[in-house]
Amino acid sequence: MWHQQKIQLTTNGRESIEISDQVAGIVRESGVQTGLAHVFVQHTSASIMLCENADPTVRVDLEMLLSRLAPDGDPAYRHNFEGDDDMAAHGRSVLTTNDITLPIANGDLALGTWQGLYLWEHRYQPHRRSIMITIQGE
Amino acid sequence: MWHQQKIQLTTNGRESIEISDQVAGIVRESGVQTGLAHVFVQHTSASIMLCENADPTVRVDLEMLLSRLAPDGDPAYRHNFEGDDDMAAHGRSVLTTNDITLPIANGDLALGTWQGLYLWEHRYQPHRRSIMITIQGE
Amino acid sequence: MWHQQKIQLTTNGRESIEISDQVAGIVRESGVQTGLAHVFVQHTSASIMLCENADPTVRVDLEMLLSRLAPDGDPAYRHNFEGDDDMAAHGRSVLTTNDITLPIANGDLALGTWQGLYLWEHRYQPHRRSIMITIQGE
Repeated sequence: MWHQQKIQLTTNGRESIEISDQVAGIVRESGVQTGLAHVFVQHTSASIMLCENADPTVRVDLEMLLSRLAPDGDPAYRHNFEGDDDMAAHGRSVLTTNDITLPIANGDLALGTWQGLYLWEHRYQPHRRSIMITIQGE
Repeated sequence: MWHQQKIQLTTNGRESIEISDQVAGIVRESGVQTGLAHVFVQHTSASIMLCENADPTVRVDLEMLLSRLAPDGDPAYRHNFEGDDDMAAHGRSVLTTNDITLPIANGDLALGTWQGLYLWEHRYQPHRRSIMITIQGE
Repeated sequence: MWHQQKIQLTTNGRESIEISDQVAGIVRESGVQTGLAHVFVQHTSASIMLCENADPTVRVDLEMLLSRLAPDGDPAYRHNFEGDDDMAAHGRSVLTTNDITLPIANGDLALGTWQGLYLWEHRYQPHRRSIMITIQGE
């Protein structure tokens, strides 16, 4: 049993947006009881992230860590056509991930108690982001 | 053909524990000949890792690298309720991964010669960790 | 419907090689219309990467970022049997990824406009690399 659906979100610039409920809703509509949900962002300057969803400062600190690892406007960058956040966004995307697969058990996403699923926008400006969700199982 | 099973491990604090044999055993019991095994840790302060399994100092060096990238007790952290390793653990988890999918070929995990699968605990204290394994194929 | 195929590439040493067309060709041959393609490199010193494929300097900058995060010949490494790039390669592999799952829609890989799929060699010397591709769907 396969179910595939694209969702689109408009971000407000660099931020993370929880999509757990939206993905869980698609899983429940699919009727799959045991299976897998694959979540894929079709861009190289945004990520899909699993993160603690109780305290929002975790995501503030993650932004801070990534600002050290893939700094905005680093003078060493050669790819900077679209501004200081251009290459930083690609770096953040490669250091995290574009795709996550989540187990489905008992007809629902089998996330841990504190696990939330997020779309992570790395660009400064608002962007329209496409996420392809593919659900399979029995 | 679907087979789903949760395993639980108690860690001794920060360390990596090889789970290759345990996952390979579940694959063989499933009877799947060609397919995929999905391994998912239901926590945001631990990781699943593929690593060279011949020389244990590789994992010592990986701990060292991550201690630079997501330092314990960094004064810039805002999320530090549970101690110096709290935010560091979330950062390490996001910089590595919570889920891995492995190919199954000829009824067994199709890992490379030197690839081992590990649960990677990022917290100082022992924790009970849940790993959901979902196997599918024919 | 399952289709599994191993491809092998010889790298010229540290570099990234686009494999989008090769994987897309295998997807089309499989006849799967809706499904998933799993791409797995069977080594711990190479990665699979999704990256912007319009401007090659993005990948030059990614090499530069990783050279800071997992430096070659770092004096703190304990694992250095095979030279300066040995542990650096394992670190780069763990900070990026060995496996990617991509959606298949309308019989083709559902990549974003600028997303290319790459094999990323982290060692200095040429290596023969095995990539297992597992396609499933309907």
